[in-house]
Amino acid sequence: MISKGLLKYIRSLQIKKYRLLHQAFTVEGEKSVVELLQSGFEVETVLVTESFQQKHTHLLQKGFTLHIVTAEDLAKAGSMESNNAALAVAKMRPSHAYSWPENDLVLALDEVRDPGNLGTIIRIADWYGLKDIFLSENSADFYNQKVIAATMGSFTRITPHYVDLLQFLEKRPQNTQVYGAALQGENVHRLSLLPQGVLIMGNEAHGIRQEIMELVTKPVHIPGRGGAESLNVGTATAILLDNFYRSL
Amino acid sequence: MISKGLLKYIRSLQIKKYRLLHQAFTVEGEKSVVELLQSGFEVETVLVTESFQQKHTHLLQKGFTLHIVTAEDLAKAGSMESNNAALAVAKMRPSHAYSWPENDLVLALDEVRDPGNLGTIIRIADWYGLKDIFLSENSADFYNQKVIAATMGSFTRITPHYVDLLQFLEKRPQNTQVYGAALQGENVHRLSLLPQGVLIMGNEAHGIRQEIMELVTKPVHIPGRGGAESLNVGTATAILLDNFYRSL
Repeated sequence: MISKGLLKYIRSLQIKKYRLLHQAFTVEGEKSVVELLQSGFEVETVLVTESFQQKHTHLLQKGFTLHIVTAEDLAKAGSMESNNAALAVAKMRPSHAYSWPENDLVLALDEVRDPGNLGTIIRIADWYGLKDIFLSENSADFYNQKVIAATMGSFTRITPHYVDLLQFLEKRPQNTQVYGAALQGENVHRLSLLPQGVLIMGNEAHGIRQEIMELVTKPVHIPGRGGAESLNVGTATAILLDNFYRSL
Repeated sequence: MISKGLLKYIRSLQIKKYRLLHQAFTVEGEKSVVELLQSGFEVETVLVTESFQQKHTHLLQKGFTLHIVTAEDLAKAGSMESNNAALAVAKMRPSHAYSWPENDLVLALDEVRDPGNLGTIIRIADWYGLKDIFLSENSADFYNQKVIAATMGSFTRITPHYVDLLQFLEKRPQNTQVYGAALQGENVHRLSLLPQGVLIMGNEAHGIRQEIMELVTKPVHIPGRGGAESLNVGTATAILLDNFYRSL
């Protein structure tokens, strides 16, 4: 059983306003909660089923409130249709200043709105070893439960930075190449890319905003040969990052 | 208004058993329905809002039953949370015999179960110009409404073939290279690939089944440098197809 007050608190964290108010967010499912408990995040409360507790006893010794609950309780408290493992409430990490990396690719998202897409992008960024991600202020919220779920644990290794993207880009070091995904860009297969500079991915429907596009020095596109009009932004990010990292 | 009988029929098509019984499936949303109406699929019934009717009058002159309805009716009849455009019922295409292509990449899925992943894979296959996709018999159903939605219209250009994958692969022409996505495979960035042979993608949790893996002549993997343990199968298919088509 979960107390009414706790249930109400956990459920409220599905809404951004309350996540900001409490500086907290929820993590659901076995893989994601295990990764959370192995990370440096501060954890407030963990709800687990008996079987999760038995399997991961060593992870449950720390200074948070632990509740043993049923799968039904977890489904009631969280956003997943079914969850027979665990749900945790963790504290957001305080945002901190960021300086431009010397020799690294910077990934920036311009108004990517779909939580599933953002989660996919975080997972693929983690696959290629990025540590940070830069998002325009009205992009999807990193701490949204659907984003967290789609990252499959990668949210623990990637730091989000919500920025005024225009101001952020204007602070780039001289001679930084600014790549932008655009249907009219250069064929990415014909470029010799290294993971340096900035790669900007745009909104699902509208692409990169005009004022941001004006800062792009090298528009790139993924050549298609079939009938599909476009690629999903998560898929396109994956393919472009692979093109940046393939020569290493 | 939609009659009770029609509503019941349309809703029943969200279940595979009834899709098979009626050899019909549903297509929802503006983009998908427009692509359906421009394709060679036989269409039974189309429900549209007034605004969709006004925008796409030229597509609505054909021999199907047309109903003008509200967005609320569409949401009630379909699987989408909101739909202010259209919903159509179309006939499945009869499956037909398939012969191995001479000089083309064959994409085969071994027990890919998630409809969203299958839809993503169909969209990316269409992007690279594939015409067919081969699926083990217990893979996700091509005509599932979530699959159709995730393809963003690409379901009209890709033909699914549900096969006994083992028997299918045993019929391959001599000297066919059989690529399989596997974490212990060769680094795909170090291979010079052409879109020829077969590429097999495995189940979300278990990868390629052992008996299928035994037929793989060239296991391949996408090198990661970060902390993510794996890639989503849709993402991995996108990156691998891009590697096969990059030299063209």
